[in-house]
Amino acid sequence: MLTPRLAVVGLGLIGGSFAKAVRKAGVVGTIAGFDADAVQMQRALADGVIDVAANSAAEAVQGADVVLLAVPVLATETALRELQPGLSANTILTDVGSTKQSVLAAVVEVFGRLPPRFIAGHPIAGTEKSGVANAFAELFRGHRVILTPHADQDAAAQSVVAGLWTATGARVVTMDAARHDAIFAATSHLPHLLAFAFVDMLSRLEGADAEVFPNAGGGFRDFTRIASSSPRMWHDIVRANAAPISALLRRQIAELQELSDVIDRGDWQALATVFENARAVRERHLSRID
Amino acid sequence: MLTPRLAVVGLGLIGGSFAKAVRKAGVVGTIAGFDADAVQMQRALADGVIDVAANSAAEAVQGADVVLLAVPVLATETALRELQPGLSANTILTDVGSTKQSVLAAVVEVFGRLPPRFIAGHPIAGTEKSGVANAFAELFRGHRVILTPHADQDAAAQSVVAGLWTATGARVVTMDAARHDAIFAATSHLPHLLAFAFVDMLSRLEGADAEVFPNAGGGFRDFTRIASSSPRMWHDIVRANAAPISALLRRQIAELQELSDVIDRGDWQALATVFENARAVRERHLSRID
Repeated sequence: MLTPRLAVVGLGLIGGSFAKAVRKAGVVGTIAGFDADAVQMQRALADGVIDVAANSAAEAVQGADVVLLAVPVLATETALRELQPGLSANTILTDVGSTKQSVLAAVVEVFGRLPPRFIAGHPIAGTEKSGVANAFAELFRGHRVILTPHADQDAAAQSVVAGLWTATGARVVTMDAARHDAIFAATSHLPHLLAFAFVDMLSRLEGADAEVFPNAGGGFRDFTRIASSSPRMWHDIVRANAAPISALLRRQIAELQELSDVIDRGDWQALATVFENARAVRERHLSRID
Repeated sequence: MLTPRLAVVGLGLIGGSFAKAVRKAGVVGTIAGFDADAVQMQRALADGVIDVAANSAAEAVQGADVVLLAVPVLATETALRELQPGLSANTILTDVGSTKQSVLAAVVEVFGRLPPRFIAGHPIAGTEKSGVANAFAELFRGHRVILTPHADQDAAAQSVVAGLWTATGARVVTMDAARHDAIFAATSHLPHLLAFAFVDMLSRLEGADAEVFPNAGGGFRDFTRIASSSPRMWHDIVRANAAPISALLRRQIAELQELSDVIDRGDWQALATVFENARAVRERHLSRID
């Protein structure tokens, strides 16, 4: 199933990688692109990620069969207002935001309802590196893409979007938007916040620059990899999904407080039990992590 | 400089990898080994990691020029008592424990002082996989090994140990034991505790097995990799280095409480500042992380 004209609004790691992947798969014709950051857009054009660099989001989406919106989640509403004038009745519009309820709310804000041809999506893929310069066609291969269909969803439009994601090598699953937000608060949003907070805390220690960070090893590197992620993107995500993240953060603080008490009173068996449970659970699920 | 006879007491990931590395480098003759776990020892013998499987720690170290003690840190004192009868006056004894003050205390407990030919060491290398089956000769290549010399240190003995580590491809540096423990509480011990606590917290969520872990992605996998580490080993480390770890844990809890407040009062600029600082600090130091 060919998509003659694709428009990508937001040419970062995800938008750029999607464009590269569907082009490589041969399932799209022309790719038009727009990014508010001229440097990103020119880089995308120079690298052949897009065929046409538009002067506005509305221009980019004109005549497009499918529009992929790939901006930080809090930029969704503004981007939708900007591209709206270029949409035709048949255009399929989809997004890649990490928080789905906030995106659906932005869509309702702009369109007055959830249009049948709006498909909410979220690829469970990414790296800590941002920007179109880091985009690559294989980013989604073997990973899941979650679609969170709404009540008025057009099934054919959903199939088109699912087909494009399948062409990138991803596996498409569907999920309720609220459930999605609760689950990813736990598996993705909170760990990002914890990693940022950990590195920030370390940076305030005496001797941080001279002695602490220079003695970090492989465990530290992996544990903090996600703390190199885009601060803007993750600020948006925490803000857009604040309630579930905040609730989980309170649970994490309570658990850490409990562990602090366990250490201070020397209850080493309780400490060992937590470590053993964590290892067993992770090992049990590891084969299922993409 | 050849070490005719090496003894390795504790045939896990570190002891096994050290034996493989120095053998590959051609800097040792015979390698005798002992592990209280007969399965580990037979595996080490079958894989050619050691040449001789001894019946006791004392037997393993008999006639050895260098003894590498590679047991969980809280097993140090018992292991030293067990191997002590086999030591000769010229034997060089070294260890690989992640906490140096506790190891030095155990040595004093057993020998009544810090023997000149005892060299405290800590290779900054490892994986989340434990056991001799996961040992490999390249584990230490390009990583640091920290020696924490004491006042009565025999310089020649230190050179022999440093030479063996250099032969594994590691870079040897020296550091004060107390400073070592404070630094690694921050860069290694606390992150392990945080990773264990995070996975443990998630495992208690409703729907953890059915929905939460199956939706984990690459960020989760790296953030929690160290939560697959040996619970026994890390229980020992937290217990052996409890004071600095506890102090840092309290700082981390305070910072997370502050972030929780920041989110609840919607101070998004403060959140962004923490994220930006963390990313900048990590990126600045990344090239120096082994």
